[in-house]
Amino acid sequence: MRTILVTGANRGIGLEFVRQLARRKPTPAFIFATCRSPDNAHDLRAVADTHTNVKVLKIDMQNESTYGPVVEAVSNMVGENGLNVLINNAGVYSKDGYEKVSREMLKDSFDINVIGPMRLTQAFLPILKQGARSSKVESFGVDRGAIINISSGFGSIASNDSGGNAGYRESKAALNMFSKGLSLDLKSEKILVLSQCPGWVSTRMGGPHASRTPESSVSDMLTIFAMCSEEHTGCYLRNHIPLEVLPY
Amino acid sequence: MRTILVTGANRGIGLEFVRQLARRKPTPAFIFATCRSPDNAHDLRAVADTHTNVKVLKIDMQNESTYGPVVEAVSNMVGENGLNVLINNAGVYSKDGYEKVSREMLKDSFDINVIGPMRLTQAFLPILKQGARSSKVESFGVDRGAIINISSGFGSIASNDSGGNAGYRESKAALNMFSKGLSLDLKSEKILVLSQCPGWVSTRMGGPHASRTPESSVSDMLTIFAMCSEEHTGCYLRNHIPLEVLPY
Repeated sequence: MRTILVTGANRGIGLEFVRQLARRKPTPAFIFATCRSPDNAHDLRAVADTHTNVKVLKIDMQNESTYGPVVEAVSNMVGENGLNVLINNAGVYSKDGYEKVSREMLKDSFDINVIGPMRLTQAFLPILKQGARSSKVESFGVDRGAIINISSGFGSIASNDSGGNAGYRESKAALNMFSKGLSLDLKSEKILVLSQCPGWVSTRMGGPHASRTPESSVSDMLTIFAMCSEEHTGCYLRNHIPLEVLPY
Repeated sequence: MRTILVTGANRGIGLEFVRQLARRKPTPAFIFATCRSPDNAHDLRAVADTHTNVKVLKIDMQNESTYGPVVEAVSNMVGENGLNVLINNAGVYSKDGYEKVSREMLKDSFDINVIGPMRLTQAFLPILKQGARSSKVESFGVDRGAIINISSGFGSIASNDSGGNAGYRESKAALNMFSKGLSLDLKSEKILVLSQCPGWVSTRMGGPHASRTPESSVSDMLTIFAMCSEEHTGCYLRNHIPLEVLPY
């Protein structure tokens, strides 16, 4: 993992990805940390202040005009090395049931949790392919190239036994389909695609009663990513070692 | 099935549902056939001209301001009998792969294939509950109350082995989650919820090489709906007799 981009990096799991990647050995050349409001991302800026390989950039998932300038900025910095890993982490959560959920909440869920990742991935594909080809790594894996979609156990249709979370569940099921479909389209490029559940994590989204910390969640996910190769591409993974797939 | 509403009834599978329901025995009291442009729906109007129980109404899935007047019109016609069956059939198809698909296509896919059915169902829930309660049928089934989401085999994440159809596949996976989640929320009301694949049908969407006609597809689906009860609620069904579930 020489070059990585993480969306939604201002807090929670995204911020923790940046923190752990910044001190990872061997040291990545660049960690591009994107968020909607870099000016207000004080915790993220503090990480960038002490790690020169962390670059804070502005992406608003719902505003595609913010994508192009970041692709260009990243492209200029990485040059021929391209981008190895894209972590689509930014997301929005909804609690309402089917009888209450608003159109606005549904639109935001699909926009931010699915359409954003799909279109952002599309925008980065040329430099992701370049990253994979120039890596000199011949087999599938994060050291060659990977697109990691941060999903949720709530996206499992088969294990849904409680209903509710209208929009969130649907968007994560859709994201899982995106991971599966994209993995097929990118097999010839040997780019790994995963849907990864982070577990129930004590972030603003997960709340204070969550069963694990961002530190342990991200540490385990990074271990998982490094374990994955060709047979895992397209998989929907629990945050568990040894690897465990979730049912769609 | 005393009272049924079908969306996207101007052509294809939707129109065929209306045709077959109109001549079904015992004769339904009302078949509400909705489409975006009733004025241009000549084939549908021809059915309504010869069947007084067919009522053509305007719903544009992407324009929620068209929902309320239809709920009111339906409510006035059915009175205390409520609505028994809602068939969310209107849909849009996309062919592009992940590298090409436009934001517009993705937005339309989620808007028409998922958000529309979710919000329209929400709008009709009060009279669907009334239909179930007033039916005097005590067990799950279309004679009590049902919401049927017309899905697609393309919505199966597990069986996706070819990629492509970006947006369409994701929206149908999301729709399958909606069916599952809603089925749980409506268990106490004993309202059946299904995700039903129509098969590959020779409509404008399916094209001329499709393996079956709208007539046989709809005839089998109506047989399937009548076979379903409590154990099928939330299921994702192939268009096949005897019943066969699709993998998510």
